[in-house]
Order: sequence, then structure tokens, then C-alpha cells
Amino acid sequence: MSERSIRIACAQLGPIHLADDRSAVVERMIALLREAKRSDGDLVVFPELALTTFFPRYFMKDQNEVDGFFETEMPNDATAPLFAEAKRLGLGFHLGYAELAPDGHFNTAILVDRGGRIIGKYRKIHLPGHSDHRPEAPFQHLEKRYFDVGNLGFPVWRAFGGIVGMCICNDRRWPETFRVMGLQGVEMVMLGYNTPEHNIYHDEPAHRRMFHHLLSLQAGAYQNGTWVVAAAKAGSEDGHVLIGGSAIVAPTGEIAARAQSAEDELVVYECGLDACSDFKRNVFNFDKHRRPEHYGRIVEQTGVIEPD
Amino acid sequence: MSERSIRIACAQLGPIHLADDRSAVVERMIALLREAKRSDGDLVVFPELALTTFFPRYFMKDQNEVDGFFETEMPNDATAPLFAEAKRLGLGFHLGYAELAPDGHFNTAILVDRGGRIIGKYRKIHLPGHSDHRPEAPFQHLEKRYFDVGNLGFPVWRAFGGIVGMCICNDRRWPETFRVMGLQGVEMVMLGYNTPEHNIYHDEPAHRRMFHHLLSLQAGAYQNGTWVVAAAKAGSEDGHVLIGGSAIVAPTGEIAARAQSAEDELVVYECGLDACSDFKRNVFNFDKHRRPEHYGRIVEQTGVIEPD
Repeated sequence: MSERSIRIACAQLGPIHLADDRSAVVERMIALLREAKRSDGDLVVFPELALTTFFPRYFMKDQNEVDGFFETEMPNDATAPLFAEAKRLGLGFHLGYAELAPDGHFNTAILVDRGGRIIGKYRKIHLPGHSDHRPEAPFQHLEKRYFDVGNLGFPVWRAFGGIVGMCICNDRRWPETFRVMGLQGVEMVMLGYNTPEHNIYHDEPAHRRMFHHLLSLQAGAYQNGTWVVAAAKAGSEDGHVLIGGSAIVAPTGEIAARAQSAEDELVVYECGLDACSDFKRNVFNFDKHRRPEHYGRIVEQTGVIEPD
Repeated sequence: MSERSIRIACAQLGPIHLADDRSAVVERMIALLREAKRSDGDLVVFPELALTTFFPRYFMKDQNEVDGFFETEMPNDATAPLFAEAKRLGLGFHLGYAELAPDGHFNTAILVDRGGRIIGKYRKIHLPGHSDHRPEAPFQHLEKRYFDVGNLGFPVWRAFGGIVGMCICNDRRWPETFRVMGLQGVEMVMLGYNTPEHNIYHDEPAHRRMFHHLLSLQAGAYQNGTWVVAAAKAGSEDGHVLIGGSAIVAPTGEIAARAQSAEDELVVYECGLDACSDFKRNVFNFDKHRRPEHYGRIVEQTGVIEPD
């Protein structure tokens, strides 16, 4: 019996302040890479927009100022040491960053193999927030202003001995995200997130933000028979608190391992990929049980159409 | 400000043995109706296949024997007293039963208004289990043998002051179920279930059966901003144990109320329908955030297509 597994190192990052430059962040990431190597990890998962503070909380009029948070190439001067060290250690990694490309501004994640080659790219599809300046709010959530909607779909890749996919932050709340990858046989979904503790849209206690985060991961994992690895940027960035709760969720939907802090922290877990197959073969045997002839509304309409 | 609400009475049923006839079951249901009335309930939710034992666990060669578990009309002699008492009390109810209709055998649920009129019908779409006799298994799960796939889609109805929908048992594990109703603005999904404590397909501890049940309800509720009301048939039917865990889940995804026994038990909760709108207007504002152009696989393919 072949025991396929990926030894995942989920690399939560503590706060990154406006004043922190990329090199300082990359140094912290390199420290986490080395810790992952000592823990015999295969693949290190870094958060969404891992190189800077969570800048969509700030309204900026000047597009040059906005673009200053974006990378025009990858690797670049700031991240070359990260790529080099990962290659030296023989580790793969997943990295989220703001990508300025010829076809737009994207909230992007890449997958890098043990040889330092970028083998996969995902651009965030479910952009949360708003596009208008809301000076009355305690902070902004301007992803819809600063980013274009991802244009690469939800691909999966054969890598690290399994079938892996990526999504980013708010994508995890949408069951469509996991299902589209589940329909491609995904065995591990990696994602990063920056989730403010405070909901600026409606009153909500902080504990529910953590509950909704975990609920979304757990449902996506169970309903598709896949591992889910979620890495937070956590803690107080210049006074703006992001939830932690980085977690590795098993195909059972159960939390296998979870970060305990709101700081830089590595969570390592050996994810056996054959554990996916009990679910993929039985309760979620899509071929046997799904009934797409009754799912038409999911693609035929975007918003709600109430009955008469 | 109008405060719309439905005072739900989720009516869990304890075991129904092979030897129990429908009249005995209806007597138990009438007792629950009366208790619901004393608790000032509006709408009583009974389980899936509420009139008999969970017969898909038995292999039957003789179709006449199978058909003996089905109802050819509703109401009928056995259920007329239930309809009459609900009407007398001014209560609506939801009832699951096996329906033998001109177009097939269905695992059906109906919604009955306070005047005793059937105002909605749903036929189960996600039939679990198998169609072949498996004598080596400790019991059967022959829903795929005894039932046809539901042919009514996932409709919703304006009733009881809100927009309500129904699904049945295994349907709850499929995010497509809730999403298709969510896209019609559903504010309350009612369902019944018979979930064996023992998984005959792969080894699984009993606690995970309850966890998966609740996880599915909670994700469906949160991700669509809807109440979910789930009524179990629970306990040991002739030695075959069904999980309990009847629950009323809020649009926050949190469990608002839950049965404590594996017997006949009523759980009453005042479900404020305006609580749905925080979610429907913000994080799950479908019109603003959904991206159906990336969801094609959900309807274009049934089973998994792995990458090359």
C-alpha cells in the first residue's frame, strides 16, 4: 500500500505594519522556512498578501501609492532570498502577494516547487469589500477598488505527490470555490487570509469571525474530501486587528492542527492523502450522487431571484 | 420596524419499529402537535419518512412488500387525524413520507398550512446508499433501489411570513442544495433525516456522524443567511441505531436549539427572519460577490475529472 502524504508547514505571520519593508518580512519568512526544515516539512504555506500590511484597509487616491504595494515580477529583489533559501532547503512554498500584471491588478497566490520554480498561480476571484471610500467606517475594505477579479479560474495541479489547489481568504466562504476544485479531484487546498476581527458592515461579535472562518474551512474539506491548509496574517497591524486561527483541516472536516498565537508561528502536520478517498469514494462520490440537472441556478443567475 | 418571525417546533421522533403501525405513530405526532400548541408554535417540523421505520435498511424482493411502506394519497386514513388536529389547533406542519405516485416512488416532504392545505411538496434529489443487495453488510441502505430521484427541483414558497424551502436528509450534505434555495432568497430550510449511527461504507467513529450532520446544517445556514430546521428520527429501531441531534440553526451558522434525547422530543425556537438579512446584504450578497463564470464545472460535469 502506498502511503502518500505531504508534511505541511502552515506559516502564520504576525502583524506587518505600514513601516515594515518587504526585506524585514522576508527575513521572518526565512526563519519560518528554516523551522519548517527542522520539522522535516515538505511545503510551507504563507498567508495572503504576505509581503506587506493589509493595505486594502487604507483609502489611497494616488494610484502610484497603491501600486507601491504590488509586485511587478516574482521573484524580485525583495523575495529572491526567500526563493533561494527555499531551494537550498529543498522546500516548496505557497505565497500570497499583490500582483501588478499587464492584464490587471490581482490578489495572487503562487505555488513554488522544491527547485524554486513557480508551478502554479491563482488570482483571487471572490473579492470582498467595497470600491467606494467610506470615511465614516473605522477602516476600509477596498479589495473591490484595488484588485481586478481573478481570471485564471480555480485550477488544480499534480504536485507534491497529490492534487493540490489554491484559493484566497474570502474565497473560502463560498462553497463553489471548493466544489470546483473538488470536481477536479483536489486533495489539498491551500489558502492565506487577512480577516479583520471587526466587521465593518454589520454588528457581529469577534468570536463569530473565528467561527465563520473555521466553519467554512471545515465544510469545504468535508464536502469535498480534501485537506485544507489556511495560513493567517494575524494580530494588530498599526492598531487594526486581524484574526489568527491558522488551521490544517482533515478531509473528515475536523481540525487536525491549529495555531495558538497571533504572531509568526509554524504549525506542522503530516497530511495523509489517502484519507481523502474514503469520502471521495463513498458519501461524496460525485459521479454516483450529484444531480447537476437540478443545480442550474448556480451558474444561470448571480444574485437572488425571489419567488412571486 | 416589522419583526417577522416563525416560532418553530422541531419535532424529533424516537424509534419506530417494524411492528409499529402508522396509527400509533400518528398518535405520537398528535401529542407533539399539542405540545407545540402549548408552546405557542406556528409550524411543526416532523422527520423524513416519519410514518414508518426506516425501511431502506431492509432488502425486500417483493415489490408489494416495498410498496406497503408507501402512501398513495395524502392525507389518507392513517394521517387524516394528524391533518385534522393540526387544522383544529391552527398549526402548520412539515411531514416526510414515502410517496407512491403515478410518476414514481419518491422520498417526499410536504408543507401544510394552518388550514390543513398542502401548499408545498419536495421530492428528495440526493438519494444516498446503493441499489444492490449487500448481504455482507450489517444492514442495507437501499434508497437508490426503492426511490426515484426527485423531479421537482428545490423550490421555495412564500409561507408563514417568510420564504421557506425543504430538503431531505442526505441533501443537507450537498452545498448545492442550500445554494439553489439561497438563490431564491430562502429564509428557512426545513428537513427531516434518518441517519444511521454506523457507516456501512467505511470505518468511522459514531461522533463523526453527528459532527458531519451539524457541520452540514451550519455551513448551509451561514453560507446562505438562512435558518435551518432539522428533525431526526432517532434511537434504536429494532436494534438499528439512528443519530438524534435535531437542531435549529441560525443564519449565523450557530446552533440556536438542539434536542437532548433520542426519543420523541419537541424543540421550540422563535426564528426571527430579519436576522437573515445581515448576511444576505453583506458577506453573502450574491449579486455583488458571486462569480458564476468560474462555476461552470458545477453543472457541466457530474463526477470528478482529474488533471492530466
